[in-house]
Amino acid sequence: MNTMSNSQSAIRNPQLIRPLVRELHPYVYGEQPKVKGLIKLNTNENPYPPSPKVLAAVRAAVDGRLRLYPNPTAQGLREKLAKLHRCHADDIIVGNGSDELLALATRCFVEPVSEGGVPRRPNLGSRRARPSETVQYFTPSYSLYPVLADIHGAAKNAVPLKSDFSLPSIAELKCGRIWNFRAALTFVTTPNAPSGRGYLTCALDALCKAQRGVVVLDEAYVDFAGENALKLALKYPHVLVARTFSKAYSLCFQRVGYFIGHRDLIAALHKVRDSYNVNGLGQIAAEATLDDLPHYRAKFKKIIATREWLSRELTKLGFRVLPSRTNFILARPSRFSAQAWLQSLRVQKVLVRWFDRPEVKDYLRITIGTAAEAEALVNAIRKIMMWR
Amino acid sequence: MNTMSNSQSAIRNPQLIRPLVRELHPYVYGEQPKVKGLIKLNTNENPYPPSPKVLAAVRAAVDGRLRLYPNPTAQGLREKLAKLHRCHADDIIVGNGSDELLALATRCFVEPVSEGGVPRRPNLGSRRARPSETVQYFTPSYSLYPVLADIHGAAKNAVPLKSDFSLPSIAELKCGRIWNFRAALTFVTTPNAPSGRGYLTCALDALCKAQRGVVVLDEAYVDFAGENALKLALKYPHVLVARTFSKAYSLCFQRVGYFIGHRDLIAALHKVRDSYNVNGLGQIAAEATLDDLPHYRAKFKKIIATREWLSRELTKLGFRVLPSRTNFILARPSRFSAQAWLQSLRVQKVLVRWFDRPEVKDYLRITIGTAAEAEALVNAIRKIMMWR
Repeated sequence: MNTMSNSQSAIRNPQLIRPLVRELHPYVYGEQPKVKGLIKLNTNENPYPPSPKVLAAVRAAVDGRLRLYPNPTAQGLREKLAKLHRCHADDIIVGNGSDELLALATRCFVEPVSEGGVPRRPNLGSRRARPSETVQYFTPSYSLYPVLADIHGAAKNAVPLKSDFSLPSIAELKCGRIWNFRAALTFVTTPNAPSGRGYLTCALDALCKAQRGVVVLDEAYVDFAGENALKLALKYPHVLVARTFSKAYSLCFQRVGYFIGHRDLIAALHKVRDSYNVNGLGQIAAEATLDDLPHYRAKFKKIIATREWLSRELTKLGFRVLPSRTNFILARPSRFSAQAWLQSLRVQKVLVRWFDRPEVKDYLRITIGTAAEAEALVNAIRKIMMWR
Repeated sequence: MNTMSNSQSAIRNPQLIRPLVRELHPYVYGEQPKVKGLIKLNTNENPYPPSPKVLAAVRAAVDGRLRLYPNPTAQGLREKLAKLHRCHADDIIVGNGSDELLALATRCFVEPVSEGGVPRRPNLGSRRARPSETVQYFTPSYSLYPVLADIHGAAKNAVPLKSDFSLPSIAELKCGRIWNFRAALTFVTTPNAPSGRGYLTCALDALCKAQRGVVVLDEAYVDFAGENALKLALKYPHVLVARTFSKAYSLCFQRVGYFIGHRDLIAALHKVRDSYNVNGLGQIAAEATLDDLPHYRAKFKKIIATREWLSRELTKLGFRVLPSRTNFILARPSRFSAQAWLQSLRVQKVLVRWFDRPEVKDYLRITIGTAAEAEALVNAIRKIMMWR
């Protein structure tokens, strides 16, 4: 330990860090358990490993090439994605997970709030934020959006979904007067997390049509839904669709996501990203994934079947299960509080997620695992019910 | 191609993108040649592959775990680095390459320039930038620094090194009146790129001592130098040292770099990074590298020996070779212009780098390859000299 003189003079530090950053609260992760033998249904990972062909392709690439820089724009991957989605490689940007792209979009399309020449902490001053400074999203949805707005120093406009987590209509949004049709950036998680609810493409189309700023349709879970809104990114010049290889394609570890949209928006995002933002083995894994899509589609069917089975079983046990179009369900347990269920299930070695937010605090979010994991969950719930 | 209606309405787009971003020029990469058989001495990669133990460790990890999120803070790697550098894991942040960390530092410690409540394009207005808005660096040094300042909307203070690329003394900096001792963030590439010149730790210490804002000592090439300035990061509360696994440790492909410094600065950087910024196989590769350091140290000796041999040979051929403490040399060729040499060498299938900037336009930057590659370069130069 050589940090004594370092710590002693720490008093100098607060002035070194921007006031904006000093005020930030760090993001809270889903637990990555260190205990073994837990059934991990808390972070929406795919329970099945990547396809054997993907693993073989990555292993085969672990050689002297690691010393070289990866392709800076993930060109090979973008070309394959363009073929899959029937667009041009220039309509695509690949990121270090889609999280990186969500952050880039915030920096690219939204002005930080400032006043009198000095950047100020958003939402604390007197004047109302300008649309150009506003990041907008529904609540509940992906908890990263407000974090990204705070990091950037942008204003947040968080607008509640309807009580059943469905999308308000344009008329309802106009009527409510909270929604901002001119917000610089609007994030829509579709299908929604953490509710699992799917949205009709025609409803999303109407929303996109009504917005003046950029809309990001965040389709992280779309492979488990009946439809997707990709065509809106190809139809509108202000709409981006976000996808990821993490969840459905079992590649969380390798950090690969992408945006599709108008090439002007994509070109702007390319300008603000890090030069070599996507690691080489991640690019190779994602390309090999695209060469083996039938393998994954078979797994999606299995996960959807497990989801439907689990939803029925939990309903029989008195849980109120919301209809899901994702690889997780939001379920309101019976008898005692969701938070107490979280604890009881952990004792039974099953890890699920609970959010301390008013709209969802009565619910558990449960990732769909394998059929065996779903059965183990049901058995754990039965056991808990017998005891209490 | 489904983008017709998309392109037709592109006229709407300019208003969607921040004025700041619209003005940006994209970063220019070193060429990644598509032609085979070229000797690639243009992007300072290590000519030797990662150690067999590192390759084995990465291959062994390519399994079902790819479906899971990696450790969000690279905890295992930070602990190993802390042991190596005799500090605490809280004094370290790992990034998606050190490039990501340089960008995070800009966003964390520097205010974007704003005027009258509206963010404005830096360096274009009338008033002088505030120190809190200023990113400072010497020229020539790593060409990414001004790009990062521009992306963030910060002001740039680019201060020339002395004509032999050595560091001005504090007295000289005070006398010159251009240097800003209160700049929010100062980047120093040490040893310097593209000159290859090394700086004495005592000179860097004096500079750090005189600065009021954050100083990043960017030691990307330090393993090829005689000394390093790590102790300054542990001594001063406002100094960060940047290191990378890319160059010396043959892991460009996997994007792993890190900062060491006071835990208050490190904690601030953690707040603004992406949640899972470092891919899992990159973490594993870096950890395995730290378990096999003697392998790499032997390679550093070989590269340094090749550097000294190449410097002597080029000097014999009439080149003016600057003393280098890195894995590249900056050399001023004889007879005709550096740019013409770049072209002639490319015809001979040797790729080196030339920068179109006044301070270095008479020089070639040549990465130190294997002994055989260095010989091939010398032979190519002899051939060109015979012909012209």
